Amino acid sequence: MKKFRLLAPGPTPVPPEVLLAMAQPVLHHRTPEFEALFAQARRALQWLFQTRREVLILAASGTGAMEGAVVNACSPGDRVLVIRGGKFGERWAEICQAYGLSVIPVEVPYGKAVDPQAVAAALRGEPSIAAVFVTHSETSTGVLHDLEAIAAIVRQTPALLVADAITSLGVVNLPSDAWGVDVVVAGSQKAMMLPPGLAFACLSDRAWAAAERARLPRYYFNFLVERKIQAKHQTAWTPAISLIAGLKAALDLLQAEGLSAIFARHERLARATRAAVTALGLDLFAERPSPAVTAVKVPEGVDGGAIVRVLRDKHGISIAGGQGSMQGKIFRIATLGYADAYDVLTGIAALEFTLAELGYPVRLGDGLRAAQDVLQK
Amino acid sequence: MKKFRLLAPGPTPVPPEVLLAMAQPVLHHRTPEFEALFAQARRALQWLFQTRREVLILAASGTGAMEGAVVNACSPGDRVLVIRGGKFGERWAEICQAYGLSVIPVEVPYGKAVDPQAVAAALRGEPSIAAVFVTHSETSTGVLHDLEAIAAIVRQTPALLVADAITSLGVVNLPSDAWGVDVVVAGSQKAMMLPPGLAFACLSDRAWAAAERARLPRYYFNFLVERKIQAKHQTAWTPAISLIAGLKAALDLLQAEGLSAIFARHERLARATRAAVTALGLDLFAERPSPAVTAVKVPEGVDGGAIVRVLRDKHGISIAGGQGSMQGKIFRIATLGYADAYDVLTGIAALEFTLAELGYPVRLGDGLRAAQDVLQK
Repeated sequence: MKKFRLLAPGPTPVPPEVLLAMAQPVLHHRTPEFEALFAQARRALQWLFQTRREVLILAASGTGAMEGAVVNACSPGDRVLVIRGGKFGERWAEICQAYGLSVIPVEVPYGKAVDPQAVAAALRGEPSIAAVFVTHSETSTGVLHDLEAIAAIVRQTPALLVADAITSLGVVNLPSDAWGVDVVVAGSQKAMMLPPGLAFACLSDRAWAAAERARLPRYYFNFLVERKIQAKHQTAWTPAISLIAGLKAALDLLQAEGLSAIFARHERLARATRAAVTALGLDLFAERPSPAVTAVKVPEGVDGGAIVRVLRDKHGISIAGGQGSMQGKIFRIATLGYADAYDVLTGIAALEFTLAELGYPVRLGDGLRAAQDVLQK
Repeated sequence: MKKFRLLAPGPTPVPPEVLLAMAQPVLHHRTPEFEALFAQARRALQWLFQTRREVLILAASGTGAMEGAVVNACSPGDRVLVIRGGKFGERWAEICQAYGLSVIPVEVPYGKAVDPQAVAAALRGEPSIAAVFVTHSETSTGVLHDLEAIAAIVRQTPALLVADAITSLGVVNLPSDAWGVDVVVAGSQKAMMLPPGLAFACLSDRAWAAAERARLPRYYFNFLVERKIQAKHQTAWTPAISLIAGLKAALDLLQAEGLSAIFARHERLARATRAAVTALGLDLFAERPSPAVTAVKVPEGVDGGAIVRVLRDKHGISIAGGQGSMQGKIFRIATLGYADAYDVLTGIAALEFTLAELGYPVRLGDGLRAAQDVLQK
């Protein structure tokens, strides 16, 4: 008998209440029952996004909402600033380039957070920037960029600020309206405790005005069409009905916990994880770590890929390795979504076994005790 | 206590085996377990599409796969032929126009099937057509276009043939390879017995060659990227994991039934439905009716919207009304996906009650007996 556990930065575990909601017979979407469910989910999303704006619900992965943000915010020939420094920052650049935009990168070394003043300098040097694209929590490096400071800078300019909040929404404070983030995109399979398949987008009045003017081709991700129809609790294209039933159930659970408790939980679990790996003599990779995921440097002489494989094949635990050029150099343990203290302790215990099995000197229990010291408080 | 039943042309009922498969804890997609599931689903999809080509699995509604077909098959300035005659034929035209293609429509009156010779004539008149877009089963009118005859004509020309098979795949015979349909797109919430949220695309060698040359912007729906990654049993963007678990379960059920039995079942249920409504004195709308959905003219003096509302609100049965200009003029009863003889009889019994309640003269049981006469054979 082998139990499987998800400690990866997406997909994340789905609570049984949500699995059961998704296993209900499929509602027809053109019914008052579905419309009531959709309306409740939309209201709860406004709470989660800390916004009075509409939050669009899309049938797509998070990348689909990212593409939607680009094609609705921009027009041919636009110059855009993209904060790179990880796979998901680079994805913004790839999408913008696929649509022929002129991308001015703000390069950030992997593992570092962008200096907000570097964004300010780039904007001063390029006065005609239409939009700034940023990744709030860069999952590939475990870095949390300082979105609040970046937003304060971009707000002083005519540029729109577009944030990938796929692994930050519901993890750290992100008051979309108060900070003035013009487009916030999110996905279902992270802190929202759902399987992948839904994506979300929340636009400011400035972003909606840009969408009215935008001249890139768009159809499936035409947010103007979606806004009009979702206001009537329907979607432009057939909605992913079972995932929306799960969304309602997941948002009920999140609302029962409360935003500040959710943020405190993620912070506490991530601190415990960081304390544990440090106590095992390992080094953290991110200088400004995200509470969603802890990136750890693979110690000298250990095969980084083997850490991920042994955890998964022998211990039944899915974490994540490094992506792209980070492959074999880091591994990443998530504290994201439906996760509690015992999930952290399970992950650390398995990591201790795995490191010992791979010949790295650990004293079993050192990591666990360090985590407990944080979790006891 | 009220039971709800889906007799709509999407979403369709989902078998309990599939609901339970989707309610399993979410697998991580970068695991041998997921890859095995994905590989099995891909092989079974080749059986369903009657193809040796790859079938791409996308996290989107069917419309997303339609957009993908356009952006991968075409380039700026291309002239394309679009067979209209219903909401979904018109959707092909809308997508092509959103991407700046030059659309030459083949107009077909609602309720009629396109004359394949009209397609041949249009192709002779326009020798530089890059692609022909057709809807196999036009859900909005209940018409089944003669895709085999159209394919035989388009095959003689350099144009690609792109077919929306969203409500025909798994309903009627569609040998993608043998007929030479260059792009076949499908969705999960029809005969595939799944909730909405997955879309599929199957391309011929000619279509893949066009995709290599294509110069429309594409990112989320870049089929070249998907093909490369799906060959390794992964997806370019996070897959809709729970729906893919359901897909495997649904394909197992379909394979156990067998293709010819599936087609015969749909044909028999649709014939019974047509016999029943005719016996009630109603007129069929489609001249070449699809076995997926039966479109019925609303009789004089009856409120077409009320038929749909009373069936839903009083009898718990979701059928579909007319869309767009057809609103109030037709109603549509599906025999699609996880449906059997007793679903048809239930729908007809409820329709008899509903018509009587709305003041239309029916003798209760006339429709049921006509349906039974077909179903007994």
